[in-house]
Amino acid sequence: MEIPRSHPRYKSLMQRHLVEEGVEKGIVTPTGLVAQGRGECFDYLLGERTIESAEKAEKKAAEMLLEAEGAVISVNGNVTALCADAVVELAKAVEANIEVNLFYWSDDRAKRIGEVLKAKGAKEVFGLDEESKEDIPGLDSARGRVDKRGIGRADVVLVALEDGDRTEALVKNGKKVIAIDLNPLSRTPRKATVSIIDNVTRALPNIIKFAKEGAVADGFDNQENLKEALKEIKVRLDELSH
Amino acid sequence: MEIPRSHPRYKSLMQRHLVEEGVEKGIVTPTGLVAQGRGECFDYLLGERTIESAEKAEKKAAEMLLEAEGAVISVNGNVTALCADAVVELAKAVEANIEVNLFYWSDDRAKRIGEVLKAKGAKEVFGLDEESKEDIPGLDSARGRVDKRGIGRADVVLVALEDGDRTEALVKNGKKVIAIDLNPLSRTPRKATVSIIDNVTRALPNIIKFAKEGAVADGFDNQENLKEALKEIKVRLDELSH
Repeated sequence: MEIPRSHPRYKSLMQRHLVEEGVEKGIVTPTGLVAQGRGECFDYLLGERTIESAEKAEKKAAEMLLEAEGAVISVNGNVTALCADAVVELAKAVEANIEVNLFYWSDDRAKRIGEVLKAKGAKEVFGLDEESKEDIPGLDSARGRVDKRGIGRADVVLVALEDGDRTEALVKNGKKVIAIDLNPLSRTPRKATVSIIDNVTRALPNIIKFAKEGAVADGFDNQENLKEALKEIKVRLDELSH
Repeated sequence: MEIPRSHPRYKSLMQRHLVEEGVEKGIVTPTGLVAQGRGECFDYLLGERTIESAEKAEKKAAEMLLEAEGAVISVNGNVTALCADAVVELAKAVEANIEVNLFYWSDDRAKRIGEVLKAKGAKEVFGLDEESKEDIPGLDSARGRVDKRGIGRADVVLVALEDGDRTEALVKNGKKVIAIDLNPLSRTPRKATVSIIDNVTRALPNIIKFAKEGAVADGFDNQENLKEALKEIKVRLDELSH
């Protein structure tokens, strides 16, 4: 497949291509492709750029990750397919652990995701060992699986493209949750401590940059911030329809 | 996979399941799954219901199909996976032909789509024979492929989940094009003669109903109608964000 760099939707098409490759590599499920499509739609509505409110949330996220006692970056197949490099770089920049977390658990897929991340330089990838497995209260065991060395003892967890139930359970269990999600209306950003309404491929490099600058966020109100994202989408719908 | 009927997003999840099954059957490409995801997003923004402006367009479409000299329903893998029954029923109700039309042409996939439609009762499915193939001017040959017995001589073409370039080329070649598409901002509905901003699984049964009633549409302005759809999305964003 060849996409000319001059194509107006080059980045979006390249991302789709990476997720499709992820299916071939056995790290993304068919449902992950549907999720990518939903993301494309919301990213289009955001103008495929980091809006101001997202940048604020990214700065806040960098601060929280730097201040954490034990931070974990929770990854799934789509995140790994889209930006394994940035996951590994962020983990190093803020001294966080990386943990695999799948909506539909599969030992084989989790193992492949771990291999991709290690090939990109991750020292260790949690979530793969049966012996370290424990359950978060409030979810059935397939969905509540965490690693007791990772999310189990973490105070700050960064999730990307995560579902609402799991985000809610993490918050109820005392974790501060940073959620990266393109849909400001979905339950995940509504339940998270800090919600970044941005494409994960733009959000992670921004968080890395802020972390390297030793980010200190100004006042931050997550609900206000989510409203700003919605306002941006409405402004963009107006622009697009004229 | 089991989805309880009581699930608030039962219909949407069932549709996703049908498209995923379509991949297994070899009638949908991975990119078709991404398209399904984009559709889910816009359908969510429409409230997963037929809005009033869409119903008007569906009535107009039924009238055009009934009045056509030669109508064709153009189908791809996603449409076939989602609602092959309704395609066949509509073709009978308005005496239209069915033609397979793929973004990425594959003889094997086209053949399988034809088989699914025939199993649902389609008498004939155009677009599969090499001998009847011709090109619509204005598109490269892979994208411009039509059947000379079908779209080649049709005056009215119904397309669903079609791309903008092809829609534009059909209109430029004198066809009246009815487009079913969930995204009111995409080029397809902007280029079509009558644009139905609705889920194809709701739109086709509505068109069938109107056709059976011998639909006579009132005045119809496509650009006005598209504006109405956008307005509905903005109202819904307001509702969802409060």
